[in-house]
Amino acid sequence: MDCYRAVVQYDGTDFYGFQIQAQGRTVQGEIEKSLKQITQANIRIKSAGRTDTGVHALGQVIAFTASWQHSRADFERALNAVLPDDIVIEKLQPTDDTFHPRFDAVSRSYRYTVINRPWPNVLERRYTHHITDRLDAAVMNEAAQWLIGSHDFSSFGQPPQGQITIRQLTQAEWTEQPPHLFFNVTANAFLYRMVRRIVGTLIEVGLGRLAPDKVGEILAAHDLRRSAPPAPACGLCLMQVSYME
Amino acid sequence: MDCYRAVVQYDGTDFYGFQIQAQGRTVQGEIEKSLKQITQANIRIKSAGRTDTGVHALGQVIAFTASWQHSRADFERALNAVLPDDIVIEKLQPTDDTFHPRFDAVSRSYRYTVINRPWPNVLERRYTHHITDRLDAAVMNEAAQWLIGSHDFSSFGQPPQGQITIRQLTQAEWTEQPPHLFFNVTANAFLYRMVRRIVGTLIEVGLGRLAPDKVGEILAAHDLRRSAPPAPACGLCLMQVSYME
Repeated sequence: MDCYRAVVQYDGTDFYGFQIQAQGRTVQGEIEKSLKQITQANIRIKSAGRTDTGVHALGQVIAFTASWQHSRADFERALNAVLPDDIVIEKLQPTDDTFHPRFDAVSRSYRYTVINRPWPNVLERRYTHHITDRLDAAVMNEAAQWLIGSHDFSSFGQPPQGQITIRQLTQAEWTEQPPHLFFNVTANAFLYRMVRRIVGTLIEVGLGRLAPDKVGEILAAHDLRRSAPPAPACGLCLMQVSYME
Repeated sequence: MDCYRAVVQYDGTDFYGFQIQAQGRTVQGEIEKSLKQITQANIRIKSAGRTDTGVHALGQVIAFTASWQHSRADFERALNAVLPDDIVIEKLQPTDDTFHPRFDAVSRSYRYTVINRPWPNVLERRYTHHITDRLDAAVMNEAAQWLIGSHDFSSFGQPPQGQITIRQLTQAEWTEQPPHLFFNVTANAFLYRMVRRIVGTLIEVGLGRLAPDKVGEILAAHDLRRSAPPAPACGLCLMQVSYME
């Protein structure tokens, strides 16, 4: 038995999230089914985090233990051959059995993509949030500055039961590539739906419905009812999980 | 009864091509079904061209005659509300009854998208052709020069029955935005599968399997067996149809 880690890409559109469930197609479920198919063993995978229904990933990280007689490149090829076409495994490599993709992660980076013009682009509908009214990226970035640093983010998300709500945000920046707006955000970890609530709130700022300073007030309120509803899942993608190596 | 024209975007992945058929989901079939749903009339649409199974469009043009009592903006909104989410109608406008989107078109522009790196991007799998081995864009562009101008393109495609095979190519250029390569091609009109056969042949050049000069020889041979098989449909998108206005 050997320990492996790998990077996983998935198109979240047709999954009920990452984590395996009694019913519904999940990323974890499909990967474990594929591992069983090629190794004949019941293998449980660990992941860096459980993305929600409809959220995508280009840089999810998983780890698992398996018995494989052939080369590592063959293992990766065999897995990709049996996986459905909305999941891709890359960078499969050996690791030691103490590695845990969630507990060892030092930061996570997400990207949220908006297409901002009167008409949508049908080829991007699965991966971008379409906003018709003009967004002001400058005020969205002004507002995002309130979030940088270590804060109690309970106005923007809920923790797993009983855990603290302080997280350290190191990046929160909108960049414009018309007609697109990209929000790149990095933290040591995120609360449940935190990125989508931050994006939803910053979009209110970008539309002129909320003054940039109000984001500081919302943060200080420690009240989930103060932030905007989560922006749609389709715009969100887990880009990278970083480890001390 | 009024005449309308509109631009149509569609994700070709889940269609059996544009043209209506006895069986299988088609773009034309879905648009005509939606027109019937909101006008209660059987309306036949005309289009600038019939894209193949799996080919996308951001700039297909259609025309039709309909009776609509409300505003044009309402007509467009009503159509988009009932259309499936892989078809979007935009720029709906009145036209005169002599307008025909195919016969009046003076040129068509297509884009073919390749992702050129060892691993795929799962979020682009529906819209790009993934090539692992390194492509040389410079030699592909050298080869593409042979195709510019008015030529008999019978080595690269078949015409509708009995028609001539001369077409005028005004643009055929690869641009690099790593890891992507885009092929932009414009002609007065294209033969059946002509863009995909040109792309398939130029990819052979880019992989070093065919000398750039050979493309001139293939063109001069007037023999469909000389070109490479068509590149996969998923990479192709009809970008624009131009009219004299």
